Amino acid sequence: MPTAAIVGAGLVGQGWAIVFARAGWQVRLYDVAADRLAEARELVEQQLHALQAHGLLRDAAGIAVRVRTADTLDAALADASYVQENSPERLDVKRALFGELDALAAPETILASSTSSIPASLFTEHLAHRHRCLVAHPVNPPHVIPVVEISGAPWTSSEAVARTREILDAVGQRPVVVRKEIEGFILNRLQGALLQEAFRLVRDGIASVEDIDTTIKDGLGLRWSFMGPLETIDLNAPGGIADYCERYGPMYASIGATQADCPAWDGALVETLSRERRDALAAADLASRRFWRDEQLMRLMRHKQRNGETDG
Amino acid sequence: MPTAAIVGAGLVGQGWAIVFARAGWQVRLYDVAADRLAEARELVEQQLHALQAHGLLRDAAGIAVRVRTADTLDAALADASYVQENSPERLDVKRALFGELDALAAPETILASSTSSIPASLFTEHLAHRHRCLVAHPVNPPHVIPVVEISGAPWTSSEAVARTREILDAVGQRPVVVRKEIEGFILNRLQGALLQEAFRLVRDGIASVEDIDTTIKDGLGLRWSFMGPLETIDLNAPGGIADYCERYGPMYASIGATQADCPAWDGALVETLSRERRDALAAADLASRRFWRDEQLMRLMRHKQRNGETDG
Repeated sequence: MPTAAIVGAGLVGQGWAIVFARAGWQVRLYDVAADRLAEARELVEQQLHALQAHGLLRDAAGIAVRVRTADTLDAALADASYVQENSPERLDVKRALFGELDALAAPETILASSTSSIPASLFTEHLAHRHRCLVAHPVNPPHVIPVVEISGAPWTSSEAVARTREILDAVGQRPVVVRKEIEGFILNRLQGALLQEAFRLVRDGIASVEDIDTTIKDGLGLRWSFMGPLETIDLNAPGGIADYCERYGPMYASIGATQADCPAWDGALVETLSRERRDALAAADLASRRFWRDEQLMRLMRHKQRNGETDG
Repeated sequence: MPTAAIVGAGLVGQGWAIVFARAGWQVRLYDVAADRLAEARELVEQQLHALQAHGLLRDAAGIAVRVRTADTLDAALADASYVQENSPERLDVKRALFGELDALAAPETILASSTSSIPASLFTEHLAHRHRCLVAHPVNPPHVIPVVEISGAPWTSSEAVARTREILDAVGQRPVVVRKEIEGFILNRLQGALLQEAFRLVRDGIASVEDIDTTIKDGLGLRWSFMGPLETIDLNAPGGIADYCERYGPMYASIGATQADCPAWDGALVETLSRERRDALAAADLASRRFWRDEQLMRLMRHKQRNGETDG
């Protein structure tokens, strides 16, 4: 079985370890803070048992055996055909670390970064084997939310992109490809566009924070959790998406003309957002609500898995 | 039990009939096209049985008994304490119809329109009892997707808005209040903002239609189906939403600065969208895919209902 090296053993790295191990890969987990490694390994095992409790996998113990820690970066990379880097979101850290990875890894090993905001070109330009370097940006936690955004630098080979897509597909993730480097990739650009409008609605006194969330979770978000927004509109006009654009294009153009400004994310607006959220959920309850969220995510994934089995 | 009059017996009207009848209300279904009424009544009964088959209600037959057709508008409104209007999206039609409704209904009966795009002020200004007129915009199908946007005209009384919210809450919908008249209300403004960015990504060759849909349905859309986008970011920073705004505000401001232009929804862009969708789903399969969508929605709602039972 192939080996994945997971470099950086925080929450994201732990998630990646689970993703590869449950798909049958050998995993070598490494972190510069060696004292964190044993704990990370323990947390991986706990998460595997939680996934098993939700019916999302079998034999958590057998899977956990495949996750081993490595004392040095060299040892972590020794047999790796795929490396997933999860260091802090700092350009200087990524540049230095990718220098080491590129020097130590076999020349065709994929070097993927989990960065959510730094383009691959900024930390791989100087590398001898930069053609195999790219971003593979997961959503947290990656072992429950499957999408991964693959974004190469201009010099990343199409073969490296294609191979990464295949690997991520094979381990059960849902890779998407960002064809040109762009800030925010796809996911945060879509999220940002929606958040800016939500912030405008709150700033202008049109809707409460709670009502905006209700509009999504009991409205738009239902279809979006099993179809995308484009398939949604494709089905919402008799003749499909072209028909939809003709019918509703003028309305959305008129709305769009009022959505060009972006509110500043500070001052009175953030005070309002924060007050309404803290009225709904005390700061002291954020941690337990995160646990609830992860439980809900696992239940939803189990639901989707079962449905997938039914639909064939 | 109170009576709801459903005026306009197309798909949306049928959905509303189900919503009120399953909550124990008497329903009087009316349509200017009298020949459509018997068929509409039949379709309501079929949908009730489908909901029962998905475990979403019991005694479909007993509920169906409460849905009766009315031969005249007068007869439909006779005992109604709530009227839901579902005529075509044409201002002249709504103006004339609301004139009739206002003249025939008891003075305190709520007159609600299902319009997705016409502000209440444009078709209720001339009415004697305009204080009880408002928009109650559902998502299709309203018996499966619970959110309803309540949007009054400037002269709509706060009592009418509050009573509508209570009624819709009581029948199991999830009402939200649009505090000032605005084009697109909340839902289509949020959807529009996200669609404009999706269209930009396709126009600029950044991502395929399929990958954009995957990014939502296997990424962002999962959390959004049980939390909203604002609770999502509230949980995504250690200190909650204010902390999130401070950490990620600069990134979203930078992304937002590139999201001001709206692509024209025509020409080469629509050709690309349509070609990619038709490659994924032939035009001939749109109808069966809509049936699949509604099945998925019912399964998801059952999943959410069960979870709600578990969470208390």
